[in-house]
Amino acid sequence: MTRPGTAGIGLADIQGQLLPRLKDVRQELRRIVEADFDLISLANAHLLQMQGKMFRPTLVLLADEATGQPQPRAITLAAVVELIHLATLVHDDSVDHSVLRRGMPTLNALFSHQVSVIMGDYLYSRAVIELVRLNDLEPLRILGRVTNEMTVGEMRQLTAHDPLAFTEAEYDLLIRSKTASLLSGACEVGALGADPHVRAALRRFGDHLGMAFQIIDDLIDYTEEESTTGKPSGSDLREHKVTLPLIHALPRLNSGQRKVIDELMATAEPSDDLIGEVIALVTGTGGLGYARERAHWFCDQAEAELEALPSSPAREALRMSLAYLLERRS
Amino acid sequence: MTRPGTAGIGLADIQGQLLPRLKDVRQELRRIVEADFDLISLANAHLLQMQGKMFRPTLVLLADEATGQPQPRAITLAAVVELIHLATLVHDDSVDHSVLRRGMPTLNALFSHQVSVIMGDYLYSRAVIELVRLNDLEPLRILGRVTNEMTVGEMRQLTAHDPLAFTEAEYDLLIRSKTASLLSGACEVGALGADPHVRAALRRFGDHLGMAFQIIDDLIDYTEEESTTGKPSGSDLREHKVTLPLIHALPRLNSGQRKVIDELMATAEPSDDLIGEVIALVTGTGGLGYARERAHWFCDQAEAELEALPSSPAREALRMSLAYLLERRS
Repeated sequence: MTRPGTAGIGLADIQGQLLPRLKDVRQELRRIVEADFDLISLANAHLLQMQGKMFRPTLVLLADEATGQPQPRAITLAAVVELIHLATLVHDDSVDHSVLRRGMPTLNALFSHQVSVIMGDYLYSRAVIELVRLNDLEPLRILGRVTNEMTVGEMRQLTAHDPLAFTEAEYDLLIRSKTASLLSGACEVGALGADPHVRAALRRFGDHLGMAFQIIDDLIDYTEEESTTGKPSGSDLREHKVTLPLIHALPRLNSGQRKVIDELMATAEPSDDLIGEVIALVTGTGGLGYARERAHWFCDQAEAELEALPSSPAREALRMSLAYLLERRS
Repeated sequence: MTRPGTAGIGLADIQGQLLPRLKDVRQELRRIVEADFDLISLANAHLLQMQGKMFRPTLVLLADEATGQPQPRAITLAAVVELIHLATLVHDDSVDHSVLRRGMPTLNALFSHQVSVIMGDYLYSRAVIELVRLNDLEPLRILGRVTNEMTVGEMRQLTAHDPLAFTEAEYDLLIRSKTASLLSGACEVGALGADPHVRAALRRFGDHLGMAFQIIDDLIDYTEEESTTGKPSGSDLREHKVTLPLIHALPRLNSGQRKVIDELMATAEPSDDLIGEVIALVTGTGGLGYARERAHWFCDQAEAELEALPSSPAREALRMSLAYLLERRS
């Protein structure tokens, strides 16, 4: 299931050379969201605590360095990209009424739905203010478009009224707008100082990487039981979210097997047994293998784009990030 | 209760000279929010239908004309200001779980809370994209700051846990960030082509006007029963929202009268009789008169700022807009 010669790549391999700059990004993020208003400070402190792997800022900084002409403003751009990501998570959690995120209570659960909506708006508008301070319209052009695409993606997700009719083309559209757009934007704003063809190559690199990222994310929902994350498996299925493995499996099921899927979709709170049965069916019909193949395909596309860049440790780290995301289990 | 010599001023007196440009603004607004996604189009159509008096676009256009050098981009700026206003309303309605706005169902009621959160984000990001297209950082600088201030205002409103301890200074802070900031921003973006001192004067004009606007809005909640709007009176009091009339009245009540206020705050769904009693107390203690005086004071401050402008029909219309807002009953 892993690519030859890439076994055992972790985030540390990719971020190692960036640690001082990533520390600056965290500092910058704290500066940007600072508020002299108690509830906002509390909410911010909570959000900064639940900061994840800083994957998006890592891409900004690697793209910046891979161009051969790193720019000091990449720190701010990396912080703003993470900020937009956090704002999106806050609104997503509010929309989904989620209570947990990365093992910590969401703002939604900790404060209220109201606070979540307003905090998301606060973070978005702080991001715009910081981008204006950079005195360049280009990052605003890129990230404004990306933010808009993400809202369209969220809307697509909300309106999938007949999930079983969801096609692979629609799935691609959804994950491109929901996930790949920001990862692509992260790579592109990191390359603002570069030649147009390098900038375009890094934008496409981020797009392909983002597609693979989300496919693997959706795959993990099927397979993570085998891992050490300890999270319940099949949570997308429990919420009747149809992702690539099931989309691939559906037309390959016989009528008896299809009845199991219909039962799942008709059950508000499916049992572990039913979830297990569906996972087994999807696995048996090659759904997981197909999704993994697609993720590999997108990673190959992404890797090809790196040819536009001069050889450098940062380019190697971008290449390793593809291997990392194909291997990740959580 | 009206200023001498200003009786009977309506919106038509202010907008009369602007009608062709306001039509262009409506057209521009439709262009900006256009989407090739069904649910977004539906939600947009609904929002555009419930468009109000276009008071903010009117201010943008009047400021633009009052500078003596009207700019074609004022049409887009006016549309974007209205768009930001709409986005704010959509998120406010989601936060407040409101079901009606301007006599029409909210997005919240018509679609869902989820759609409201995402639609607000969609509209905000469309606004950013349009501002970037103008190829000037200044409007982004102004409206980014304004949008952020409005979120802080919303947060202030949410966290007023002991409404009766609310001071007049806190009330001023709240309405300045919640309401005056966007009206001030509307006037300022209309004056971007003008000399810095004219731009600053129009920004301050909008700030004072905005303060008066919200004070009158809060006052109408006490007095509107006498008007022809037919809306139930005292809806702020029903929701335990403490505004200027009550803030002024509170320290002037005797202990028996104060008990009526305490009863109101302790009652989840106060009766019409109780609301009527509170309104009578606030009126009797001079709360309404005081609030009206404050609104007049802010309008006088605003009017003084107009001295920085050359005499013109647009300047007269800005002056009339002050009289209009002092007289309005809905």
